[in-house]
Amino acid sequence: MNAAHLHLASAPAPEFEVSGWLNAPQAPTLASLRGRVVAVYAFQMLCPGCVSHGIPQAKAIRQLFAPDEVAVLGLHTVFEHHAAMQRAALEAFVHEYRIGFPVGIDSPGEAGPVPRTMARYGLRGTPTLLLFDRHGVLRHSLFGRAEDLQVGALIGQLLAREREVADDPPCDGDACSLQ
Amino acid sequence: MNAAHLHLASAPAPEFEVSGWLNAPQAPTLASLRGRVVAVYAFQMLCPGCVSHGIPQAKAIRQLFAPDEVAVLGLHTVFEHHAAMQRAALEAFVHEYRIGFPVGIDSPGEAGPVPRTMARYGLRGTPTLLLFDRHGVLRHSLFGRAEDLQVGALIGQLLAREREVADDPPCDGDACSLQ
Amino acid sequence: MNAAHLHLASAPAPEFEVSGWLNAPQAPTLASLRGRVVAVYAFQMLCPGCVSHGIPQAKAIRQLFAPDEVAVLGLHTVFEHHAAMQRAALEAFVHEYRIGFPVGIDSPGEAGPVPRTMARYGLRGTPTLLLFDRHGVLRHSLFGRAEDLQVGALIGQLLAREREVADDPPCDGDACSLQ
Amino acid sequence: MNAAHLHLASAPAPEFEVSGWLNAPQAPTLASLRGRVVAVYAFQMLCPGCVSHGIPQAKAIRQLFAPDEVAVLGLHTVFEHHAAMQRAALEAFVHEYRIGFPVGIDSPGEAGPVPRTMARYGLRGTPTLLLFDRHGVLRHSLFGRAEDLQVGALIGQLLAREREVADDPPCDGDACSLQ
Repeated sequence: MNAAHLHLASAPAPEFEVSGWLNAPQAPTLASLRGRVVAVYAFQMLCPGCVSHGIPQAKAIRQLFAPDEVAVLGLHTVFEHHAAMQRAALEAFVHEYRIGFPVGIDSPGEAGPVPRTMARYGLRGTPTLLLFDRHGVLRHSLFGRAEDLQVGALIGQLLAREREVADDPPCDGDACSLQ
Repeated sequence: MNAAHLHLASAPAPEFEVSGWLNAPQAPTLASLRGRVVAVYAFQMLCPGCVSHGIPQAKAIRQLFAPDEVAVLGLHTVFEHHAAMQRAALEAFVHEYRIGFPVGIDSPGEAGPVPRTMARYGLRGTPTLLLFDRHGVLRHSLFGRAEDLQVGALIGQLLAREREVADDPPCDGDACSLQ
Repeated sequence: MNAAHLHLASAPAPEFEVSGWLNAPQAPTLASLRGRVVAVYAFQMLCPGCVSHGIPQAKAIRQLFAPDEVAVLGLHTVFEHHAAMQRAALEAFVHEYRIGFPVGIDSPGEAGPVPRTMARYGLRGTPTLLLFDRHGVLRHSLFGRAEDLQVGALIGQLLAREREVADDPPCDGDACSLQ
Repeated sequence: MNAAHLHLASAPAPEFEVSGWLNAPQAPTLASLRGRVVAVYAFQMLCPGCVSHGIPQAKAIRQLFAPDEVAVLGLHTVFEHHAAMQRAALEAFVHEYRIGFPVGIDSPGEAGPVPRTMARYGLRGTPTLLLFDRHGVLRHSLFGRAEDLQVGALIGQLLAREREVADDPPCDGDACSLQ
């Protein structure tokens, strides 16, 4: 494919570090979603590209694929205008924009404006779409506007490629973890 | 025209009652804009239709018409989620969405969630586009999505119709005010 | 307005020279449409910009304005690929694209590929939107993509400005009055 | 996926029966494209949905994927307005719409308006997107507007799933192997 995207390490990705979740009775984890492809939209509620493109694309993914095949999550990674995007504001946003999938609130950074998960994953900004394979390995990180055709192709490949080895737990260095 | 809109009274409209302005060194008034057609967008920063349609249309009007012919204003009429849409949040929104025209903050209602100017003008919700003629008379109030073709036609008619009588000060009841 | 458009002569425009009409039991003429604003879309059925933008805009104008206020016409001005855009092809096109307004077929040029009305009006290509005032005077000629907001404003101004003098036609039948 | 699509037989599909090709020095065949996923758009040049959605999607597929991974073809399956959509008209259309991929002209039907390949494949109308796997087996037939996200996912799955067995063709030349 022509569009730029990153192929990332083969180890399962670290879990999100969040201060809370919206739309989620139980906190989702990458571990609990093993077996599914996972699409995570890192966004800010006052980021125009997130609102016009990222959120609608997230909804479309959620509508197209079976929930036991592809999971969709939001991650509110606020790195600017912090005062304007606190939890109450996010709740209003999620309500007004009819967002039905779980949205995690990225934990504030220890030193600086960038929140913890955003820093850990090395995100460049918002929106960023993170695509994880069925083993929880981060396969693609797309910053900015990603076209539906490309996103569909990446998800389709992850859906197909990983099926055969789903019984074969991933290995990280010396050891293989049980699932 | 087929689309619904209101033809309103012939008297100059009451001034806006706001707690402050963004993007305006001096507070704009309808009186100070006499001679121009005035387009006012009543919006809420967390209203999806305002963000996807109203704000872009306001920008397009501002770009198309000469500023001494058509003035564009925003009016932040918050009637829900008040905690999420305070001044600091609006400032972040105006910055992120590159809004260059003056935005007034409608004054909180005395009893209830609806702010004062919104109540005074009898608005049904957001977005609402208010179109004033060159005399400050409210001619059209369009609630919801208004098509560009219709909005252009209404502004064009106001631009043309009122020019001839611009020297003829408007009258309100018994008296005619000097300009 | 910022967008380029031509202000043209004050005399009533020459009639169209066509080899036939579709969707018109009686051949429309500019003279027969006096009193109305007239929007004429010069197009070619195989011109991508005409199909994606011009034709939909023509339909929107026809739907928005009362037919006794604004008349909409098409003019098939073929200046290339003549073999592919004969009358039978145009009839199929008009049927498939659900075009309900009258469409004139510009008469073939005497010497060269440019048809007669297109040459007479000095059109640069397709799509071109021609806007005539209530007296049949050509007021605006917009080549290429014209935004709905601008087109609406131009029509609105023509609708309003000319109303007062509608009883005083510059040319009606045998004579032309001075203005 | 929720959207309707057909899963079709496992045997390689029959070749197209065409009267000629545009944009193709050598006639493409499904056999010659073995090893690639093949996207074929059955369209008519005067079909509005084909022009507004199908053709742009075909171009986007061609731009996104490497040509040795995904091949894109057009198939002009005229079943109405035959006089208006002959080869010369199609050539003008292909030129004006900047179509760069090969376009086959479906052979006229022996008895009736439906052309031969369209009949053989049992297509319901235009546009129809046919997706073939790396072995030339027809996997999906989507009639009408297909969303980019879905089309991307189907292509992505075909790209990934078939890679492992690409050396084991079900039918190549004289014989077909059981799968």
